[in-house]
Formats: sequence, structure tokens, C-alpha cells
Amino acid sequence: MPDHVTINGVRYRWPQRPVVVVCIDGGDPAYLERYLADGAIPNIRRFIEEGFATVAIGSMPSFTCPNNISIITGTPTARHGISGNFYLDTATWEPVAMTGPELLRGDTILAGFADAGAKVVSITAKDKLRRQLGKGLDVGKGHVSFSSEFADRCTLEENGIENLLDYVGMPQPDMYSVELSLFVLEAGIRLLKDRRPDVMYLSLTDFVQHKWSPEEKEACEFYKRLDDVFGRLVQEDITLGLIADHGMSDKSDAAGEPNVIWLQDILDATFGAGETTVICPITDAFVAHHGALGSFVRIWSKGNVSVQAIINRIAAVHGVDLALDKETACRLFDLPEDREADVVAISRKEMCIGSSARQHDLSGLKGHRLRTHGSIEETRVPLILNRPLNADYRQRAACSLIRSYQIFDFAINGTL
Amino acid sequence: MPDHVTINGVRYRWPQRPVVVVCIDGGDPAYLERYLADGAIPNIRRFIEEGFATVAIGSMPSFTCPNNISIITGTPTARHGISGNFYLDTATWEPVAMTGPELLRGDTILAGFADAGAKVVSITAKDKLRRQLGKGLDVGKGHVSFSSEFADRCTLEENGIENLLDYVGMPQPDMYSVELSLFVLEAGIRLLKDRRPDVMYLSLTDFVQHKWSPEEKEACEFYKRLDDVFGRLVQEDITLGLIADHGMSDKSDAAGEPNVIWLQDILDATFGAGETTVICPITDAFVAHHGALGSFVRIWSKGNVSVQAIINRIAAVHGVDLALDKETACRLFDLPEDREADVVAISRKEMCIGSSARQHDLSGLKGHRLRTHGSIEETRVPLILNRPLNADYRQRAACSLIRSYQIFDFAINGTL
Repeated sequence: MPDHVTINGVRYRWPQRPVVVVCIDGGDPAYLERYLADGAIPNIRRFIEEGFATVAIGSMPSFTCPNNISIITGTPTARHGISGNFYLDTATWEPVAMTGPELLRGDTILAGFADAGAKVVSITAKDKLRRQLGKGLDVGKGHVSFSSEFADRCTLEENGIENLLDYVGMPQPDMYSVELSLFVLEAGIRLLKDRRPDVMYLSLTDFVQHKWSPEEKEACEFYKRLDDVFGRLVQEDITLGLIADHGMSDKSDAAGEPNVIWLQDILDATFGAGETTVICPITDAFVAHHGALGSFVRIWSKGNVSVQAIINRIAAVHGVDLALDKETACRLFDLPEDREADVVAISRKEMCIGSSARQHDLSGLKGHRLRTHGSIEETRVPLILNRPLNADYRQRAACSLIRSYQIFDFAINGTL
Repeated sequence: MPDHVTINGVRYRWPQRPVVVVCIDGGDPAYLERYLADGAIPNIRRFIEEGFATVAIGSMPSFTCPNNISIITGTPTARHGISGNFYLDTATWEPVAMTGPELLRGDTILAGFADAGAKVVSITAKDKLRRQLGKGLDVGKGHVSFSSEFADRCTLEENGIENLLDYVGMPQPDMYSVELSLFVLEAGIRLLKDRRPDVMYLSLTDFVQHKWSPEEKEACEFYKRLDDVFGRLVQEDITLGLIADHGMSDKSDAAGEPNVIWLQDILDATFGAGETTVICPITDAFVAHHGALGSFVRIWSKGNVSVQAIINRIAAVHGVDLALDKETACRLFDLPEDREADVVAISRKEMCIGSSARQHDLSGLKGHRLRTHGSIEETRVPLILNRPLNADYRQRAACSLIRSYQIFDFAINGTL
């Protein structure tokens, strides 16, 4: 085995023991705060006491794809290029999905270690993410990469493992369920025991956090189950890193109605239909729990309306935090210019921004309050390690804010 | 002695041993990073290894007064009201200095502890800050509050101590000198040995950081001397907290010329003289090393020019990061609305914003590169404790970004 491997400019030492990073999708610090106070998560509490814990800064927009890709490449969004689920191709004026591996720039940490001879495992809840995280990973060589969403259709050729439901001992989980995340973790433990991979990434789904606040018992129950699995994971002599892709905030009013800015409707009323296009980059196949509503949207002009006019109109909308031109947005939030809109709009924490009211299906909320993400506040996520930092990384923590995309760096290079 | 004291809504336990907080004015993380790597600051290195260290978020604007007041009150700027050195009184259209104690809202931690029966000491480099920090502190009752700037004129009545030069054994330091800060620290050690106060605040000056980058030997020499004093301080069985009011960045171009946006000149050219007033809230009596240039300014309109027109003009200026209306600026940066301008302009890290070129005297730079602060980047400061966090505060650090104004809270309540 080599002494180290360099991936996207970061040098990683060869892991002395398996390194397992769990991305708690939507794992807002508020959940931890509540359940630590309740005593409901004793294993996480022990990691905080004996290991290392801080709040790390995630990538903007505070959505799942950009942050998972930041974490798995160890790079900011400007470098890996996946700045959301969609951007607009101005040649065709069609939205382009960014969730395929072909738009990802640079290598994943998984592929880098695999190429150097390590055994790697990647398990996600959602399959769209599985494909992106699997970029450059040759599962035929013994590596494993699958999603719990499609656990029942895994093949050796595509996923490096088969008969998964029997192997894990759980039925195929529903797309919107607690089990979709728990399956990821139980499969991880099983593979850890059987194959002892060097590097493992386990990425969950934020179904629970979209649906339930920290005060609701369903969320607490989920965190208790997570905590239980984390306790069993660290019994396998591993370095465990916990991170989140983004936080989660209540974006409803006192009556329980979503606080939505229907931005396409506003812009159409001001500039005429067809002059601007609002893209909600949170949009994907799993929108029942948030109706494709987040706190960050992109706006392109067909060319007749100036960027400044669009910015002025958006800035005047109640609940908007920032309306920025492409250059400023890319500089402030480290976004890739070639996939950025003419204008970026970010709402306040308690608000979200949609396109046209008629384009969003909110029936999936089923009476729940809208909880979602995308704003600056939701870039703040817990970063927890079960082992203490070494002297070098303690010094780093004193000199720089820690980014969530440094979790593998800290877990692999930074722990005792 | 009481079991605890509550100040501005924060409950502080009674200190078991003296708590000494040092504010390293302009103590950018870059200095630490460099000297830790060099092995030049072994005591600070030991605190980081054995105690606690992180990067904390300071108050905007990243200037001395707002942050010292945040630190000494334990509150954000919106609450204590000191949002810079100056604001504009729109009744008289005259700049109002905010550096007196009368505009400070709430109590200082020093006064709160003194009222509860603790012995407190406050020593600053600059006298303007001494007066503000001394709000509500009755030095006649044995408390000490003085500035090294006026060390030679201290009286028992005004400062709680006299004959200071003899007492400390140092000559009166020059207004622009390394010794102005070192005098503060040496006086602190002497008072700690003689009087063992319960709470001590030592606030330095950023003369060195304005003048020299981390790469220059003068800055390294200063940090070595600081490190030496810190080592002697902790020999007195104290809890030591190190914090900074703001960072410091090079804001000059490749030729060594300051990167200045002369905003009043730009606005006058656009809207006519007298229509807008730009206030540089970094302005004070000590401007030789920065020429009253920072990265945050305030703009008021006489009433003929709209806020939106001003914002649009400023946003179009190269090097401006954000141009915000009052409401947005106050919401994003927790500023007091009644002292905020119609428009706030913040430059990029590598730039600064002045008023009119003729109103700034840059002769004090004497060929040095301009190094100054005020931007968002310079809110990031090191927070270091010589003792480890207790379990409760380790959990807090996992759930919230730490603000620099929490240094007393963490030092008093959060350490083992």
C-alpha cells in the first residue's frame, strides 16, 4: 500500500483503520442541540466529549447535491461544478440536470483511494446521488456502490454486490421512509464486518428532517436509531466522521402555510411572460416533502431585461435576503461561473422562493409545515469525529473555519 | 460572594480563579498560522494542544470599537449599539462619535461583576476605548481601569491606580509602538500578582498588524513577545482567553499602492456634491497606520437621491462586495437600525473604501503597504483558551458557531 494518496490537491495518508463518513442529510444542528439536552443520543454525546466536534460551513446553495459532491471530492463547488440539481442551458433555454457524473469535475476521494489499491464502499439513500458519487469507481474490482432506493435491484456488475435485501436482512425500504436511511447504515455495518473497507461513505436522506422538527417525537426517534447505529459502527475500530450536507428550517407562517415567494410570477408580472426564467435548483424526483421549494433560486434573462432591473425587482420583494449578479454570487459563494445564472436570489431563513405557484405541487406536504433549506443559515452543519484531533489539526482548527468538505481530510489526516 | 451573576441576560458563574481575557487587536488568524508553523509561539501552541481553540465570528463592521464592546458586554452590535466610531446625525447632518460610554446600551461584564462584589481590572492601549469599557465601573471601590496611552497621567480617582510607570517599570510608551500593547500586558501581570482580580480585560492595539504582514520579522518579534507574556500570565493560575476584535488584510496592489474606492468622489460625480454623505466608521485619532481606510462605509442620502439609485451606483463599482439598504444590512449583520445609514457598502477583502481622496491622509503609511480591515473576511478571529472545555460547552461548540463576544462566557462558564 502507498504511504499516501493525493486527490484534487489534498494529500491523504493511508488509513490505519477504516474511515467511515456518514452524511446526515438535513442534519441541522438544532436536532443535535435538542437531543443532546434530552440525553437521547448518548453515543454522539460521547464522540463530542472524547473526540472532536464543531460547526462546519457547508457549500452554497445549501442543497444535497452540491454538498455531497463537495464532501466526496474535498473541494468547493466552484471546483467540482455541481452547484445544484439544475442549471439552464442558454443555448437551448432548457434546464440541464447536474446530477449525472459527467458534469462532475475532478476525482472523488472514493475513486482516488480505489485507484491506489484501497477497498471502498459508497452507499446512498437516493440513486441519483449514487451515480454521481460512483464516478470513476470500478465496482468490478471489489468496490461496492449502491443506493437503498434501488437495493432490491443491485447487481454485482453495477453495484459490486447482489441479493442485498437478504444480506442486510431488511425489506426494500420505501422512498419516503426512515428505513431508507437506516438501510444505508445497516448495510454499512454489515459490509464493515465482512469486508473491512478502508474508506466508506454513507449518505442518508432528509425525509425525516423535512417532515418533523426537533420537537417532534418522530424526529427524536430517528435520531435515537441513528445514535444506536453509530454506537455499533464505532465498535468495529474505525474512525467515524459525522457531517451533514445542509441544515433544515421551518419556512411556514403562524397559520402553517408555507412562506413562499413565487418569483416567476412576480417577474412575469413586471417584465412580461417569457422574459426571465427562474430555476429552482432543489428540484428533483423526491419533491413530495418540500414541493421543490428552497431558499436559493437562479434567474436568467432572455436578453431584453437587464440584470440590474431584475436585481432591483427581486431586492424589493419582502423576504429576499440577497439578489446578486453572477460575478458577485460566484465570488461570495465559490460557485462555478459557467453554470451560474444572471441573477441569484437567496431568501431569509424563514422564507423560500418558488417559480410559479402553478408549477409547484405542495399536496405532498399533507398538512405538515414546510421545512426546507438553501439559505445561508442552512450551510451551518455539525462536524463530529469519534477520535480527538492530532496537534496539527488542532492548530488548523484555531486558524481557519472548517468547511464541511474537509470531513474526509479531518477524519483521515487529522485524528489521533 | 454570590454563586453567579447575570449580565445582559447571560448567566456567569462566579470565577473559581482569575479570568483574564486578552483582545489581540487585529490578531488575524494568518499570524497564528504562520508562527505556529514556525514554532515561534510555544505557549499559544500549548494552549491549543491542552485547552481549546477555534475560529470565532466577530461582529460587523470588523472594527475595533464594535467588537471590543461586543466582547465586554457579551452581546451583538444590535444590542449594545456601538456599530463603529461614527454615525451621522441626520437632524444636524453632523458625524457623531460613538466612542463615548453614553451611547453604549446595556452593562459591561466588568461593571456587572464589580457590582456583585468582584475585583475587576480593565487595561486598554487606547484611551477612547478605556472610557467606553469603563462604563458603570466605580474605580473608587478598588477597581482599576486605565489606558497605556495615558499611563503617565493616571490618578487614583480616575483610574484606581497612580504612579503607573514606576509600578510597571516601563517608560511611557509611544502612541505608535509595540510597547503600547506590551505595557498593557505587563501591567496586567503586575496587578494579577499584587491584587489577584477576579476578572481582567486586556485590550491591545493593532499598530503592528496594520504595519507588518505575518511574513515580516517585526510582526513575528511582536508575537514572540506576546507569547512570552501569555506564558507568564498562566503561571498565575488563571483562566486565559485569547480573542481578537478583527483580522487584518493587505489591501494594496502589486505596485504597493492602496486599493481604494473613493466613494464620496464617485457619488458626487454621479449625483452632485452634497447629495450623499459617506462616513468611514473606522475614523479615529489613530489613523496614521491606515489613513481612516477600511472595508465598510455608511452612506446617507440628503433626500433627493433614492436609496435604490445609490445602491445601484455602488454595486457597479469594481471591488465592492455588497451594497445594502439599512434593513438588509441590519438583518444580515445584526446592526442597530437607529444608527445605521441609508446604505451600507462593504468591499472585497483586498480593497478598501474611502470618502474623498482629499479627506484621507495616507502620508502616515510612509511607504508601507496598506493593511486594514472592516470586511466580512476580517470578522474571523482566533478564540483560544488555556483550559479545555467542559462537557456542556463542548456540546455547544458542536451545535453553534462561536461568536467572539462569547469569549467571557466560554472562559468563565465553559472551562474545566
